[in-house]
Amino acid sequence: MKVKETYLFRLPHGKDLLEALLEECHRRGIKVGFISVIGAVKEATIGYYDQKEREYRSRRLPQPLEITSCTGNVSLKEGEAFIHLHILLSDRDGRTYGGHLLSPTPVFAAEAWVVELEGPPPERRFDGTTGLFLWR
Amino acid sequence: MKVKETYLFRLPHGKDLLEALLEECHRRGIKVGFISVIGAVKEATIGYYDQKEREYRSRRLPQPLEITSCTGNVSLKEGEAFIHLHILLSDRDGRTYGGHLLSPTPVFAAEAWVVELEGPPPERRFDGTTGLFLWR
Amino acid sequence: MKVKETYLFRLPHGKDLLEALLEECHRRGIKVGFISVIGAVKEATIGYYDQKEREYRSRRLPQPLEITSCTGNVSLKEGEAFIHLHILLSDRDGRTYGGHLLSPTPVFAAEAWVVELEGPPPERRFDGTTGLFLWR
Repeated sequence: MKVKETYLFRLPHGKDLLEALLEECHRRGIKVGFISVIGAVKEATIGYYDQKEREYRSRRLPQPLEITSCTGNVSLKEGEAFIHLHILLSDRDGRTYGGHLLSPTPVFAAEAWVVELEGPPPERRFDGTTGLFLWR
Repeated sequence: MKVKETYLFRLPHGKDLLEALLEECHRRGIKVGFISVIGAVKEATIGYYDQKEREYRSRRLPQPLEITSCTGNVSLKEGEAFIHLHILLSDRDGRTYGGHLLSPTPVFAAEAWVVELEGPPPERRFDGTTGLFLWR
Repeated sequence: MKVKETYLFRLPHGKDLLEALLEECHRRGIKVGFISVIGAVKEATIGYYDQKEREYRSRRLPQPLEITSCTGNVSLKEGEAFIHLHILLSDRDGRTYGGHLLSPTPVFAAEAWVVELEGPPPERRFDGTTGLFLWR
């Protein structure tokens, strides 16, 4: 897929990270692309997919943390833009925590780079092997 | 280097992460570019380069893990496409592990973004200072 | 913003990671863009922004480490190119450390991908809510 446009922007203080990114995608009509974010959050929620039980377990991290890495993509799920991001966070001692980004994860300050791609967006469908919604 | 094309695709369940990416590069003729992957693996193997002893030490992580970050590049080594990736993984408690991506690291589910670049690909040559194969 | 050019290059052994990247940006006239680095350092310095006290706390990691992820951006601060990067590092046991990249962080071997963007560069201004210099 070709690069259509890229966006470098700040996310609003206090807003949920995933929701803020999804709103930006809606506002700009982005349906497929790459996302990378750095910054800090007031607290975070991360997920781990239990491959045997086939369900997400979530963990709340109730402290201010740096977003040390946050990468993923936008693609379609049931016809709508859907964001899939994994995140690494670090605390005041440099200790790190990671997983699938969940809400609530309120932003303290965050800078995103979104690369909008051109071409037919990959679409997520239920995958029987993993229990996840994956691209065909 | 200019962006020639970008690819957003899923990697096959059960296949080794590094091998699967290399096959995609071969299949599409990609010799130079940037790679970013998120997803999950059934287990993982990571490496640490001992800067004094000048050798890689590998560690096996024998449990299902999220791929919380996986970034790196494709370039030439002895005339062939060679992939260099570093990876961060997280377990059910959000604890993280990281290093140089090695095989075997069988994919549970993984989504890659590969940016193919145009222009003379950087080529890896042995570097006496570090004992590594680096770009000139 | 459109992609103007991208650069895939190696950073000099022994040189500070942040300084080396800033020099490359100066040399090539890059004022706005995305950066991703992998490699290894001889030692590292990472920061954590204390959201209450509104100051950075730094931590020295006095051992050789892999750069397992290092992502961020270039934009303007007081008219000059300014680099903001977050970094994850891992030790011989695969344990990870993360935070805001600070100096000194001398490079052992490092490979950078810099995407130069076209258009009016976002400019950092003091933000009263966070105490940080953020994009308007």
